[in-house]
Amino acid sequence: MDSTEESKGLTLDAVRDALIRDEDSIVFSLVERARFPRNAPAYDPSLFGGVGERALVDLYVREAEALRAKVGGYQLPEEVPFFPKDLPSPLTPLQKNPQVLHPTSASVSVNEAIWKMYFNDLLPLFTVEGDDGNYASTVALDLVCLQALSRRIHTGKYVAEVKFIDAPHDYGRAIQAKDRDTLMKMLTFAAVEQRVKSRVEKKASIFAQNVTLDECDDEAKCKIDPLVVSHLYDQWVMPLTKLVEVEYLLQRLD
Amino acid sequence: MDSTEESKGLTLDAVRDALIRDEDSIVFSLVERARFPRNAPAYDPSLFGGVGERALVDLYVREAEALRAKVGGYQLPEEVPFFPKDLPSPLTPLQKNPQVLHPTSASVSVNEAIWKMYFNDLLPLFTVEGDDGNYASTVALDLVCLQALSRRIHTGKYVAEVKFIDAPHDYGRAIQAKDRDTLMKMLTFAAVEQRVKSRVEKKASIFAQNVTLDECDDEAKCKIDPLVVSHLYDQWVMPLTKLVEVEYLLQRLD
Repeated sequence: MDSTEESKGLTLDAVRDALIRDEDSIVFSLVERARFPRNAPAYDPSLFGGVGERALVDLYVREAEALRAKVGGYQLPEEVPFFPKDLPSPLTPLQKNPQVLHPTSASVSVNEAIWKMYFNDLLPLFTVEGDDGNYASTVALDLVCLQALSRRIHTGKYVAEVKFIDAPHDYGRAIQAKDRDTLMKMLTFAAVEQRVKSRVEKKASIFAQNVTLDECDDEAKCKIDPLVVSHLYDQWVMPLTKLVEVEYLLQRLD
Repeated sequence: MDSTEESKGLTLDAVRDALIRDEDSIVFSLVERARFPRNAPAYDPSLFGGVGERALVDLYVREAEALRAKVGGYQLPEEVPFFPKDLPSPLTPLQKNPQVLHPTSASVSVNEAIWKMYFNDLLPLFTVEGDDGNYASTVALDLVCLQALSRRIHTGKYVAEVKFIDAPHDYGRAIQAKDRDTLMKMLTFAAVEQRVKSRVEKKASIFAQNVTLDECDDEAKCKIDPLVVSHLYDQWVMPLTKLVEVEYLLQRLD
């Protein structure tokens, strides 16, 4: 969340607003990536020999994250690097972010699962097959998608904290029993999830449309399929957010 | 343009499609940057002493461009770096892009003007004043805006080539006379420009809206003012694109 929001204190409304705004960022990032075809060579570790055993996208993300750390990134709990080892120190003074999360839990990361999901499952659903050689644009846009997804999913830490504060005894029992299933059930609201899925599908249909000056836009020509976005939320974004919430809560009393 | 488009041969339709698609990218990038306040310290060369005499944004863009060059960026004529000096060689094999532009003119750059316009004129129009300390996100999003604007504006090279091919004698006379005013007039179509302005304003009003599941969205709550986008096109994007076209044409017979 923006620190302006945090300084207002941690409220469910502020967290919800951040989650809703992240939906727009996620849709925009997918629409932009879909401008290019799959471009599989960017993901093949056996190519571009000089790079060693890493795929081009690994090299790019690693170095882009190092640069981002240098200019002060990864100071907020929802901003989590994919390659957290050996990140350089920031050149800028550290942000004075109010410590609203429980320190032990604040560093939860499910980025490994996000990375796998993005490249193995999601990418084939919203890009067309093909190779146009534009690997630099491709990996740069992949990173924007990954960062948007990761930020949304790790905002689950705030969701968990707000819910814990609201009912510490109920959550405390399940946490002490290390009862993941009960925690997952306590964090699941089917009606809310249905609303989120409908909203992201609507957002995709609006943001991915080809806008012309004519009255009747050709809706068949959406740049990404809105159903892919609701599927993304249903299968991966909401489950992974809840996984972050569970992991956060399990360490909440440490 | 994507090389898939180029391989179809250079047609005015393909160039026009690329320009129209760039409008979406520009609007998305501005909406994303507007999520953060101005964050002026990122632009102040006197801050962050360790960086030397450069502002944080300079340092970030310079290093991000070096990384992009390393993974194969800046091979297309519409992809122009802001800091072209000392870019590293690409690790990937060079793209085989069909040489559709005149070699002497293909390297025209107006990025210095784009940089000044973006930071001095545009940024204050679509971001709110304030400093939330999120400089890493801020400069990363600035670069996305700059790249989107630069790509759109330098696609003018293709526009110029198509127009030259279509009427080599008419343009040839003005080129040989180094008659910038006549070239600028030949490249100006007020009715087309008016349509572009209306379309980008419409796109901004659609892409910057806060989409909810309710029927009546609050249109007053757009994330950026659609009029800023038509102003951006009117005052800077279209004039700078035409400047690229004129510069391209002036070297077209060399």
